[in-house]
Amino acid sequence: MENKTKASPHVVVVGGGFGGIRASLALAKLGVKITLVDRYNYHLFQPLLYQVATAGLSVDDIAYPIRAIVKQKKNIDFRLAEVTGVDFGSKTVTMNTGTIGYDYLVVAAGGMTNYFGMESVEKHSFGMKTLDESVIIRNHILSMFELAAHEKDADKRRALLTFVIVGGGPTGVESAGALAELAYHVLTKEYHHVNFKEVRIVLVEASDKLLAAMPESLREVTVETLINKRVEVRMCIQVTDYDGERLTLKGGEVIPTNTVVWAAGARAIHLIDKLGVEQASMRRAVVNEHLQIPNHSEVFVIGDAAHFMQDERPLPMIAPVAIQQADIVAKNIGNLIKGKELKKFVYKDVGSMATIGRNAAVVHMGSFKTHGFFAWAIWCFVHILRLIDFRNRAVVFSKWVWDYLVYERVVRIITRK
Amino acid sequence: MENKTKASPHVVVVGGGFGGIRASLALAKLGVKITLVDRYNYHLFQPLLYQVATAGLSVDDIAYPIRAIVKQKKNIDFRLAEVTGVDFGSKTVTMNTGTIGYDYLVVAAGGMTNYFGMESVEKHSFGMKTLDESVIIRNHILSMFELAAHEKDADKRRALLTFVIVGGGPTGVESAGALAELAYHVLTKEYHHVNFKEVRIVLVEASDKLLAAMPESLREVTVETLINKRVEVRMCIQVTDYDGERLTLKGGEVIPTNTVVWAAGARAIHLIDKLGVEQASMRRAVVNEHLQIPNHSEVFVIGDAAHFMQDERPLPMIAPVAIQQADIVAKNIGNLIKGKELKKFVYKDVGSMATIGRNAAVVHMGSFKTHGFFAWAIWCFVHILRLIDFRNRAVVFSKWVWDYLVYERVVRIITRK
Repeated sequence: MENKTKASPHVVVVGGGFGGIRASLALAKLGVKITLVDRYNYHLFQPLLYQVATAGLSVDDIAYPIRAIVKQKKNIDFRLAEVTGVDFGSKTVTMNTGTIGYDYLVVAAGGMTNYFGMESVEKHSFGMKTLDESVIIRNHILSMFELAAHEKDADKRRALLTFVIVGGGPTGVESAGALAELAYHVLTKEYHHVNFKEVRIVLVEASDKLLAAMPESLREVTVETLINKRVEVRMCIQVTDYDGERLTLKGGEVIPTNTVVWAAGARAIHLIDKLGVEQASMRRAVVNEHLQIPNHSEVFVIGDAAHFMQDERPLPMIAPVAIQQADIVAKNIGNLIKGKELKKFVYKDVGSMATIGRNAAVVHMGSFKTHGFFAWAIWCFVHILRLIDFRNRAVVFSKWVWDYLVYERVVRIITRK
Repeated sequence: MENKTKASPHVVVVGGGFGGIRASLALAKLGVKITLVDRYNYHLFQPLLYQVATAGLSVDDIAYPIRAIVKQKKNIDFRLAEVTGVDFGSKTVTMNTGTIGYDYLVVAAGGMTNYFGMESVEKHSFGMKTLDESVIIRNHILSMFELAAHEKDADKRRALLTFVIVGGGPTGVESAGALAELAYHVLTKEYHHVNFKEVRIVLVEASDKLLAAMPESLREVTVETLINKRVEVRMCIQVTDYDGERLTLKGGEVIPTNTVVWAAGARAIHLIDKLGVEQASMRRAVVNEHLQIPNHSEVFVIGDAAHFMQDERPLPMIAPVAIQQADIVAKNIGNLIKGKELKKFVYKDVGSMATIGRNAAVVHMGSFKTHGFFAWAIWCFVHILRLIDFRNRAVVFSKWVWDYLVYERVVRIITRK
């Protein structure tokens, strides 16, 4: 084989999320040289970010050092750096700390919060896509209760105690449920000077559906469960503006609030805008059936950053898509090296699930659907299993059991003034 | 009793550390009204701060919400605020969020890092008295390894990999030991591009003693153990300057380093300077035998903030002193209310202990002294027991067992850019 006599090819993987880690580990088996670049030194288990924001888990429960994940693979080199651009001509990646060349490139750089061009909302509301953002939300929510406990002005107090979450997808639904439990089961025991009748938790969704990917029966269960947890569910209404004190809805309704969490949408990360490639909805890079950028057969894009049509719809921005695409990309890079035919990507739907709080979740897999305690147990089991390491699993499991038994949330500390 | 017909007295406790929490809980039993003020919303288990700085524990393992501690006591009101002054005449405490009056005041505001007037050192080195400071140290140490992994300039690389800890007290010794284990047992497996022969961990102490409160035999064991862990122990030498790149020692020796952790001293917190009371060494407030400020019998100072002479020496700034003083102060406030005679404070020495790493600690209690594995087991047991809540105990215990078995440190994430 002629390849054996050449230096082994160098693959650069941009992003240490679900797609990037999976691709790097799969590529490592091919014997190629891999450089994995991420702007953070940890892999983040994004599906549980909302539990950090609502004081259920701590930062390191869902963040795992990338070097620890790849330490067994001597052919993976990790670089802590932010990628600022790619030159397809010279095959180099530009980072804030220098440049590196590549033979093959895998862009798994992920997504970010989409404010749909609403600058005032972007400036005043909280996004929840990064670990730092989740901690900021936790600090903010707890600070609102501290301020409210000694606020004499009733108008100011109500605004402090009104929490609005925008977006009825999994992040919005899970956050609203977790926040309601934090307020009504945990904080109510400790803020003796707060009248919890003044607390409002509002979930705003523009369409008439919560968890739109779910079948109708489960969507209905979701709405009912949230209402039972004292979340005000507002559907069929759009947010038009937020100035930090007043949230304005379409038609002129105003909600005075100091807290708006924006979970209404995601888009591909800014890096994709800088590549000069064709972009589709949500600024995602259009890829071909082999997940390559058209005209650059050595460049692959996967996960949230990639626009891949299947059954006439773009695939959603979820971890299973990124993971399945990572496997195909690793195979296809192997095939390119060996001169073999490339594999086409087809996404196999693994279903979806969301938790709404204690004993309450909705699960949909193929024709199987369930809700309530059993769904909640499945949700817990699946998420524990997916955590990357035995220790994180054990700690998260013990925290969940503890919270369940004693209605607690221990991570209620306000850091970073 | 005439007091029964009056409104119950109001006690303000400043500080939610070991002294302030203990005093508040003891006072709560007297039936008085208590306002507990702290600038953080959590009680911090300071003896384990160094484990946060060296990636062994996470922030919320050693920080516990104050409201959760006092939630059973309806007569304790917590306020998240920074105390900026006290007016003894009008009996009011000024905070950044307003003022409150008091009948009795307990100042348990603690200590802070003492740079002994060396401004350049204060500006460029890291203190380790607060949770935020510990996280900053952790982020910094891990970042140094990330930068060193791709630094071509050998001089810059050595400065990145040189870590100097100043101060041979428990904090300095425990930090040096923990950092050596982090570097040589954990990071060495993951930074394939770092030559660990270039790593230096230096402990600098001005006197000829490490752990000066320990008997000589244990001090010797401490030095030997650190040297065996590849810590360079430098005694009898003072730091004179640090500009962020070059640490200068007395006599002109220069150590190029990007990391200096300053654990060389503590002093009473700035608030004490603003009270207009007599201050002694380390700026601590002089108190009488009943722990009162002279001429203000309703004002008590305890813990690191108080200067109390016993056996011709001021009591050290350690938790057992604060805790024992808190008990006496609560009794004395009760006695003042009832018109009874006040109790004198006498500190009962509970001994001291420090851990230097795996299987290595020194323990000294009365005439009992031991070191090695048995001392280390005692240290672990005592520190687990002292943690405030069963869940924290269980989580910390499981992390220690895990780290012990697999030589790991999972909290190696760099947060906050």
